[in-house]
Amino acid sequence: MSNIIRTLMIQTPSVPGNLGRVATAIGRVGGDIGEVETVKVGHNYTRRSITVQVESEEQLEELLDAVRSLDGITLHTVSDEVLHAHEGGKIQMKSKMKIETLADLRRVYTPGVANVCMAIKEQPEKAKIYTSISNTVAVVTDGTAILGLGNIGPVAGMPVMEGKAALFDQLTNINAIPILLDVNSPEEIIQTVKNISPGFGGILLEDIGSPHCFEVEERLKKELDIPVMHDDQHGTAVVTLAAAISACRSAGVNLKQARVGQIGLGAAGIAICRMLMAYGVESVVGADKSEEAKDRLRSYGGETVDSLEELMEQSDIVIATTGVPGLIKKEWVQKGQIILALSNPKPEIEQEDALEAGAIYATDGRSVNNVLGFPGIFRGVLNAGVRDITHKMLVAAAEAIANSTKPGDLVPHPLNVNVHEAVAEAVERAAVQSDVKKNVYQ
Amino acid sequence: MSNIIRTLMIQTPSVPGNLGRVATAIGRVGGDIGEVETVKVGHNYTRRSITVQVESEEQLEELLDAVRSLDGITLHTVSDEVLHAHEGGKIQMKSKMKIETLADLRRVYTPGVANVCMAIKEQPEKAKIYTSISNTVAVVTDGTAILGLGNIGPVAGMPVMEGKAALFDQLTNINAIPILLDVNSPEEIIQTVKNISPGFGGILLEDIGSPHCFEVEERLKKELDIPVMHDDQHGTAVVTLAAAISACRSAGVNLKQARVGQIGLGAAGIAICRMLMAYGVESVVGADKSEEAKDRLRSYGGETVDSLEELMEQSDIVIATTGVPGLIKKEWVQKGQIILALSNPKPEIEQEDALEAGAIYATDGRSVNNVLGFPGIFRGVLNAGVRDITHKMLVAAAEAIANSTKPGDLVPHPLNVNVHEAVAEAVERAAVQSDVKKNVYQ
Repeated sequence: MSNIIRTLMIQTPSVPGNLGRVATAIGRVGGDIGEVETVKVGHNYTRRSITVQVESEEQLEELLDAVRSLDGITLHTVSDEVLHAHEGGKIQMKSKMKIETLADLRRVYTPGVANVCMAIKEQPEKAKIYTSISNTVAVVTDGTAILGLGNIGPVAGMPVMEGKAALFDQLTNINAIPILLDVNSPEEIIQTVKNISPGFGGILLEDIGSPHCFEVEERLKKELDIPVMHDDQHGTAVVTLAAAISACRSAGVNLKQARVGQIGLGAAGIAICRMLMAYGVESVVGADKSEEAKDRLRSYGGETVDSLEELMEQSDIVIATTGVPGLIKKEWVQKGQIILALSNPKPEIEQEDALEAGAIYATDGRSVNNVLGFPGIFRGVLNAGVRDITHKMLVAAAEAIANSTKPGDLVPHPLNVNVHEAVAEAVERAAVQSDVKKNVYQ
Repeated sequence: MSNIIRTLMIQTPSVPGNLGRVATAIGRVGGDIGEVETVKVGHNYTRRSITVQVESEEQLEELLDAVRSLDGITLHTVSDEVLHAHEGGKIQMKSKMKIETLADLRRVYTPGVANVCMAIKEQPEKAKIYTSISNTVAVVTDGTAILGLGNIGPVAGMPVMEGKAALFDQLTNINAIPILLDVNSPEEIIQTVKNISPGFGGILLEDIGSPHCFEVEERLKKELDIPVMHDDQHGTAVVTLAAAISACRSAGVNLKQARVGQIGLGAAGIAICRMLMAYGVESVVGADKSEEAKDRLRSYGGETVDSLEELMEQSDIVIATTGVPGLIKKEWVQKGQIILALSNPKPEIEQEDALEAGAIYATDGRSVNNVLGFPGIFRGVLNAGVRDITHKMLVAAAEAIANSTKPGDLVPHPLNVNVHEAVAEAVERAAVQSDVKKNVYQ
């Protein structure tokens, strides 16, 4: 017997008795009512979300028909638990203090606020102390590469941006503001972000498609004086490097002296290669069916090969981020190889197949979540007050994640705040050390 | 004996004993220590805010010198109570739910979030339900006319924007996001706001200078499909109309049949004239030293005169918003006139002078605060889900404020949430009625 739980968003006239009609209709077809929440009391109508439980899809259809047939009552939506968790959005902008008296109002609004404005006008760096700017990050997307879903537009990508903002708050107390861009060119992204940049202490570029993501990030890093990071490149690369370090520890392999093959040279793949080189891996090789992608890797100092077979043959460690399930054939696996087949939800090769074919260590990407990276990275750079996010800082973040991983695991629990604090501290330390160097040698 | 309270932001090495050194130095010069708050524990240093009380400016200087002379300790800032209330900013972006388990993470972030994105992709109007967009307003400024302070730039204006956002949250549960623009032309403001508009349910333009504020607002109202309002024009006009209605009630004058003279035709003055005409005042006349401003009022159907004397002579009710203290001479005041001299902090004529000169009712602008308008206006339009903020809706807001005012008062208490609910309901009702009309006649 299966139990199906759905949440109904129902609109009734704002007149007593209507909820009773709805409840009766649901009960008549055998539906159980769980939570009833009044979402909005409007002038003419009331909107409620009602959770119902039924035993089959057929019964659910019967129930929905019964509600729909009620006169003057509208069934707006039928949602599952995941959708329900998103109702009204996942984030909210809150006042830090209660404004309760006229004295409070004079302090935080007119006329008192004028003194604060003038203090900042006279010494602009005071904005770091008297506004939220230096603790606020814009999460910017043009909607061209949302998760694995592709170019679905910025509004459909909003649940991802809100998710990131919710995690920023919970894990590292950073204010993150989703910025959805309605634009058609890299130049427009760059110009719009520059135009709104005074309100932010940092910019997280998110789910921006390849190849325009490269130009957008490089230009913004150069032209803005606040830290900028494209998460799908460097956030993903940080967590992948952490996973590679852990895998090598488990397998007893020295990562820096190994030859690492990266299959797939999209935004993430290229960034992983660059991160491995920055970490000190002596030999990194990449493969992709796109010549443009291979050119790009070579422009960053990486090596490329023409076929997957060639890459598999040469590599001690293989990392795959292609999105193509089953791409890696069992017969290509070398004895003693480490294989991280990271595509979600289905990997390039199943763990058991890789191990059976002779791999010494194999895993998929289910636990490799970039939420391990971005919150602590930004906490660290905002604390340090530096302008650039350097590879040195990102490698420090990856090492902090790897050092927080329990022996045998690939990565730590993504909601453990200690991990995020460790990442932030490592990034801040690397940032401060870079700064000291700059002062000495420049 | 005067008591001076100041808050010191002090940075010490992260080594025990340093706070003791600071406290001893403060005590030695006779300073009392109040609150001690640890603001940040960094890798190398700790930052604390310490509130001290002294009896004179001289003693304060002595105390500050004593702290500054301590080796290895930095006195970053000395702030007063108002500034202290602004430390770290006044707003924060919060997650609505605690994300505590991997199941929670899968629900609000990957992989669960993908279902929500696809639901919105398939039916874009579902973004109203599954994201925060329809409850989020951008508070946009280019920093060209911050309060009465002028063109001090958007960052120095941030405390005002944060104040508005804090009030939006507290009074009407709207998420307000300050957007600080680094731009140099009306066209750039318009284009940037359009580019970021997908993430917002409404746009509040704020402290944008005249005359470019007119073009910016008109173009955005036409080119965006979400409500747009310039608060310095229409928010101020709504509260002023409410005050005029209350003043006329107190004086037993019929506002609609009176001749109203508006002194000062800046952004607020023009908007007040338009609002009075929309309310149904038969005769509205304006005066300003700028010919351009008078042309603008005539383009909106208003009447103008060339001198203040002329305006004073003709008007039953006089409203002044010039920012020029003492502009209205006692000898100009007519017997039985109502005078609202609204400039802050000093009015165009003092209440007692106006009454002495024969006015039947006179007041200054100390209690006329536009926080009475914008939160409820936006709550109303967002609830109604309409695209335009019409004069009909704004007049409804003004009437709701006037109807919430206690007899004898000019406006209600600005932090009374019942007032904001009444405004929201009036605006929503006016919006819904307009919509019905649109459906019938179009």
